[in-house]
Amino acid sequence: MAQIHVNTVADICAKQGVERAIISPGSRNAPLTIAFNRHPDIKCYSISDERSAAFIALGMAQSSGKTIALICTSGSAALNYAPAIAEAYFQQVPLLVLTADRPPEWIDQWDGQTIRQQNIYGRHVKASFHLPLIGEHPNEAWQAYRIVNEACLQSQFDEKGPVHVNIPFREPFYPTKDHSWEVDKSARVISKVAGRKELQTEQIEELKATFDGKDKVAFLLGQDNYTQEFLTSLDQVSASLQIPILADVISNGHQLKNAIKHTDSAGMYLAKQAHLEFIPDLVISFGRSIISKNLKLLLRNNSIEQWHVNEFKSDISDPFQSLTTSITVNPFNFLSMLKDSLKKDKGFLTKWKQLNEQLDKKKNEFLIDQSSFNEFSSLKTVIDALPQNADIHLANSLSVRYVNFIGLESANHVWCNRGTSGIDGSNSTAIGHAIAASDKQHVLITGDVAFFYDRNAFWHKYLYHNLKIVLLNNNGGSIFRMINGPRDQPELEEFFETEQKLDAASLSQEFDIDYYPTNDSDSLAQNLSKWLESKNCSLLEIKSDSKNNQQIFELFKKHIQN
Amino acid sequence: MAQIHVNTVADICAKQGVERAIISPGSRNAPLTIAFNRHPDIKCYSISDERSAAFIALGMAQSSGKTIALICTSGSAALNYAPAIAEAYFQQVPLLVLTADRPPEWIDQWDGQTIRQQNIYGRHVKASFHLPLIGEHPNEAWQAYRIVNEACLQSQFDEKGPVHVNIPFREPFYPTKDHSWEVDKSARVISKVAGRKELQTEQIEELKATFDGKDKVAFLLGQDNYTQEFLTSLDQVSASLQIPILADVISNGHQLKNAIKHTDSAGMYLAKQAHLEFIPDLVISFGRSIISKNLKLLLRNNSIEQWHVNEFKSDISDPFQSLTTSITVNPFNFLSMLKDSLKKDKGFLTKWKQLNEQLDKKKNEFLIDQSSFNEFSSLKTVIDALPQNADIHLANSLSVRYVNFIGLESANHVWCNRGTSGIDGSNSTAIGHAIAASDKQHVLITGDVAFFYDRNAFWHKYLYHNLKIVLLNNNGGSIFRMINGPRDQPELEEFFETEQKLDAASLSQEFDIDYYPTNDSDSLAQNLSKWLESKNCSLLEIKSDSKNNQQIFELFKKHIQN
Repeated sequence: MAQIHVNTVADICAKQGVERAIISPGSRNAPLTIAFNRHPDIKCYSISDERSAAFIALGMAQSSGKTIALICTSGSAALNYAPAIAEAYFQQVPLLVLTADRPPEWIDQWDGQTIRQQNIYGRHVKASFHLPLIGEHPNEAWQAYRIVNEACLQSQFDEKGPVHVNIPFREPFYPTKDHSWEVDKSARVISKVAGRKELQTEQIEELKATFDGKDKVAFLLGQDNYTQEFLTSLDQVSASLQIPILADVISNGHQLKNAIKHTDSAGMYLAKQAHLEFIPDLVISFGRSIISKNLKLLLRNNSIEQWHVNEFKSDISDPFQSLTTSITVNPFNFLSMLKDSLKKDKGFLTKWKQLNEQLDKKKNEFLIDQSSFNEFSSLKTVIDALPQNADIHLANSLSVRYVNFIGLESANHVWCNRGTSGIDGSNSTAIGHAIAASDKQHVLITGDVAFFYDRNAFWHKYLYHNLKIVLLNNNGGSIFRMINGPRDQPELEEFFETEQKLDAASLSQEFDIDYYPTNDSDSLAQNLSKWLESKNCSLLEIKSDSKNNQQIFELFKKHIQN
Repeated sequence: MAQIHVNTVADICAKQGVERAIISPGSRNAPLTIAFNRHPDIKCYSISDERSAAFIALGMAQSSGKTIALICTSGSAALNYAPAIAEAYFQQVPLLVLTADRPPEWIDQWDGQTIRQQNIYGRHVKASFHLPLIGEHPNEAWQAYRIVNEACLQSQFDEKGPVHVNIPFREPFYPTKDHSWEVDKSARVISKVAGRKELQTEQIEELKATFDGKDKVAFLLGQDNYTQEFLTSLDQVSASLQIPILADVISNGHQLKNAIKHTDSAGMYLAKQAHLEFIPDLVISFGRSIISKNLKLLLRNNSIEQWHVNEFKSDISDPFQSLTTSITVNPFNFLSMLKDSLKKDKGFLTKWKQLNEQLDKKKNEFLIDQSSFNEFSSLKTVIDALPQNADIHLANSLSVRYVNFIGLESANHVWCNRGTSGIDGSNSTAIGHAIAASDKQHVLITGDVAFFYDRNAFWHKYLYHNLKIVLLNNNGGSIFRMINGPRDQPELEEFFETEQKLDAASLSQEFDIDYYPTNDSDSLAQNLSKWLESKNCSLLEIKSDSKNNQQIFELFKKHIQN
């Protein structure tokens, strides 16, 4: 493929809305590097570790909503993208993955950096394409440009997601010194105009008849990238029809007026207390994953009916073993349909709001009351002090669970990799956000295993001074001490917690991060304000004892349930 | 699957020769963790970063020749194994990859750590299996045990390689406290007796007739795990028939009597000087990849005939565009067939040996002559001082190329990930060797990008005091400055070299590695002996200027060619 064709690929991407590309170094991908870097409308970043590069791209794509291009060389480089690509797939984040490849005739000929790249991401991409080598026949350029158009559009339309384009290159890879950056004028940009799915009159009538026959209805928000239009409408419908909104921390519904944010505590409490009047007849859900394990169990263990509203996906997911109707319609349009429905009895909403308040109070009392230094109480102190409009990035898995129990008060937007729920890229994802939304403050809350796992997130030259990190360092994966089962096994410390002795001092020094270690209430009080005031990337390390944390968490559960 | 079934899986693995398992922490894989850890004949290691864990397993498997089990939880954990699995596939290293999975009914139901794990490694495993959930029907246990037997055998027989077994688990994952470790007595271990492929009389006669008609024959050794029996026979046949052995540094043929180790320099020299008398009529090759780019080009650009000898693979690989006959037979048996062939004219072997000596001398003169401090000369100094029987681990890509030009004198065994030629796991692979072959001295020679890329290799509690590291720190991927093309592009520093400013001081401190930085001849002389004498893991950092290194390498090429 001549450089002019590769330039055209970059140009089509730019015209399809790709504004940023992350490039990992290599020779086979040099034509892509040159084409994207020289394109006036694309900002390129160079990141050496492809695993981290892909999570940084994920963060940028979440933050901007725009498709981010990922560019790597041939060979195992492409495989290092896989964890972030799976996360993007299940979280519906738009990525355009451009992997350079050897030309087909050199696959399996024992040459370096040559693997079997076609369809390498299996079932974790929306689509996978393989570009032709563009030679003499004009259909080859037509095919290549058409594929690049389709790949960009697929990443953005219907549910968003990652799309793979594998691109074979023959040598030479480098243009001569006097090469001027030109594109193939024959290339077209194909645009897409997509309607919204709406329900037909008789479908509406049928659904409304069922809806109006239910007394106890709850909305449930899973993780999704909701539009403001939808959330505003949800708030209105919830108020006018008196319907509670079950909204845990990853749903970003915590600012809605009728949001029940203590869903995990509520599930825990109701399982113990068996107040059947809290069980909805009908749950109308939007989005995908929810973090509250106890709410999931509550819904699974009681006889409810669930409607799920989703415009695009044809899969039938049944997370509460209660799904009766999959409603394929634009969620905003769905709410419009409900507007003139019968108002529900106020009692159900009121009960849930009272329970939510009661659980909030119980949680506050409990966390303030603890005399020993522990990460749960400390984290509440930190969260209370966070800037109002910061984006909060939560690592898996204890961090997001703690914050879900604590609950957010202010207008923070929450991000968390709950597509695959891996610990593998939380630093990089947060840094992707910090680079892309550089005018915002970002706070990453993470545990030590997730933090050190993804330490290459910091290994590049781009600025992330607007990122603050809270590191809950309990020297291992202490979630395994919290859940029932592993703590009774002799393998606990070595194979479940995976005790690790590092603190973040060396890493902070290496990557020029302001480091504030704390291990008691005094040092937390002193360092918290310094950490908040720092103009550099700053890290607040809360070092606490895993066994004590476990006891506190046990006490917390008992306190909530009684 | 009850714990007793999982124990039986571990027991079958142990009886099939699995002596070591690397476990990454998780809950879904807890039954596997417990079964393998409690098995008396399996040593388990806990490594948090799955990417690193898999490369450590690769190193252990290379070192021992035995299958190493890899055990991870469900979700993206499995994807982090992918780079090492591809390397194992192309390098034919036996791994048994056991990924815990949710049971089939919970896939795509938005639960945490749930992806689509069946066949997740695509075309980079020898085989991929999915275990049944073992319930009441006795055929389920039969199927599961039979699959585990087959997976172990497949990893070891014919060409070795990675095999994937995906294992769904329903809760509960943890046995009760009083659980005693038992196995299912009904399980069988299936053994395999495999013959060697031998040629039939008429096949032998036909090949020998062709062979005896060729005057200029060369053996060529690609990277492989050759038996000592084969190498001894090759030495004998080479001596008796007067055939040179083209053996670059990754072939481990450098100690053979008629080894031509300066194949890269020879290719460079002969391309310029066009001495046609060096071009073989027939190349008989064994193994797979070779590192010497100039030898490859020489063979591609001249009219030769190639026979490739390989007992197992049915693929036809044609790396020199010269293959005429793929000979599927045991390589040792192939050599036996040649023993009574006609002796070749001595001139061809003598010419090659003289050229090899001449190039060795030229290289030594050149490297000693350099007055400025540079990594190429420094590396020669270091290599001359290495312990005689150390295993040498070479990172991609400049490190292995330098060492190939320098050439080894002593009985060091060389390891290098030339299956995919990635930079992604060279530290971890070396550490896998250091743990598995703890009585040996190991030396890793690496560049700064490969070194920092895989820095999580050091993040665990296992000892590797028998590992010494030579870090060629030129602050970026300076191979891009060495090859033609990228150095003339404005993208050179940011996107090809990917300039990075770290030295290994912080990392060494963090992981308790003895650190010896050098940046001139005096500090190299002083620190080299300290580094060699250290009883801890020790790192010799050779900091040099990328531009100067490039100039030296250019001069070296000219010196060799003239």
